[in-house]
Amino acid sequence: MDGYFGEIRVRTGSRIEFRNITSDVRRIVGESGVRSGIATVYTPHTTTAIFVNEDESGLRGDLMKVLEKLIPVEGGYQHDLVDDNAFAHLRSIIVSPSITIPIRDGRLMLGTWQSIFLAEFDGPRTRTVYVQVLGFR
Amino acid sequence: MDGYFGEIRVRTGSRIEFRNITSDVRRIVGESGVRSGIATVYTPHTTTAIFVNEDESGLRGDLMKVLEKLIPVEGGYQHDLVDDNAFAHLRSIIVSPSITIPIRDGRLMLGTWQSIFLAEFDGPRTRTVYVQVLGFR
Amino acid sequence: MDGYFGEIRVRTGSRIEFRNITSDVRRIVGESGVRSGIATVYTPHTTTAIFVNEDESGLRGDLMKVLEKLIPVEGGYQHDLVDDNAFAHLRSIIVSPSITIPIRDGRLMLGTWQSIFLAEFDGPRTRTVYVQVLGFR
Repeated sequence: MDGYFGEIRVRTGSRIEFRNITSDVRRIVGESGVRSGIATVYTPHTTTAIFVNEDESGLRGDLMKVLEKLIPVEGGYQHDLVDDNAFAHLRSIIVSPSITIPIRDGRLMLGTWQSIFLAEFDGPRTRTVYVQVLGFR
Repeated sequence: MDGYFGEIRVRTGSRIEFRNITSDVRRIVGESGVRSGIATVYTPHTTTAIFVNEDESGLRGDLMKVLEKLIPVEGGYQHDLVDDNAFAHLRSIIVSPSITIPIRDGRLMLGTWQSIFLAEFDGPRTRTVYVQVLGFR
Repeated sequence: MDGYFGEIRVRTGSRIEFRNITSDVRRIVGESGVRSGIATVYTPHTTTAIFVNEDESGLRGDLMKVLEKLIPVEGGYQHDLVDDNAFAHLRSIIVSPSITIPIRDGRLMLGTWQSIFLAEFDGPRTRTVYVQVLGFR
């Protein structure tokens, strides 16, 4: 059994942004030498999230709008009295900061249309994503 | 440490459908011989998701309705100009395509009322679910 | 490779409640002796969930309100004819009962502001959380 830990740095450019980090995650899985196992992709921030879906600009816009409908930026939140980013925390909870993906034959088992995204909800900032690989060479 | 990879094929019958795949996941955990560890259940499609909850027909209907309220099929989405299934992508993001469940004494540690579901949001189609088991015999 | 399984018992005090279980999860990771790997935090109930975010009282109140807006306690649900807690099941599905977090140098890799919460949606009850650790000493 082998384990490998990698870290991705992302400099986001807007308050809300979905950044495709698939090639970075694939690189770390390659570095790990793991042929069969899992990769856990995890963001240690409370105002970001990780999700998997198609990288299509219209869809990214739709996700912006649907999140604004469900958890608007301005929502009269109590936490906004402490720090003006309650919506970002709430979206991080709903979308989730962690996803685990199988690895087989040394390949991350993403489907044809799947990409891995870091969702920034309170940028621009420098963000970190952890990738923990576990499995067999 | 042992690893084992299994695949489940599901032929869905409707556009939107929640299919109980618990017995297939249990069978793969049994085949793995793993007594202690984890199973990651993962769907490689961008218009399906994996969730865990009670298998009760009223509740399945409630979930249909609540998802229609939150992310309606018809939402004037930009992605619908590319492919008429934006709602299915958005629901896949919110519900998530991956879940990891502990294994102990060779048993998937689901609670009494928990079943594992594949959520189809753009069927009917033939769908795949991956099950990656990691742990000890 | 090493594996370790721990269990947390939580006696919740209200119908809806978010309980910080970070110190219990850290204790189990410490007991495991695992220096590098993952911890899967999993709740076997269909009316609870696990999430990670900041422990701030205003934010906990905001999460209560946003969940009540998205999936209200009273929603005319079909499942309420069987058992009066459909909203709790639906929130468990949306928030999810499982999260996997990397471990490095023997430390759970939570960010500075991240805590792990058990979300109770149908208390007060005695609840269980499983923590499955996998990795290397």
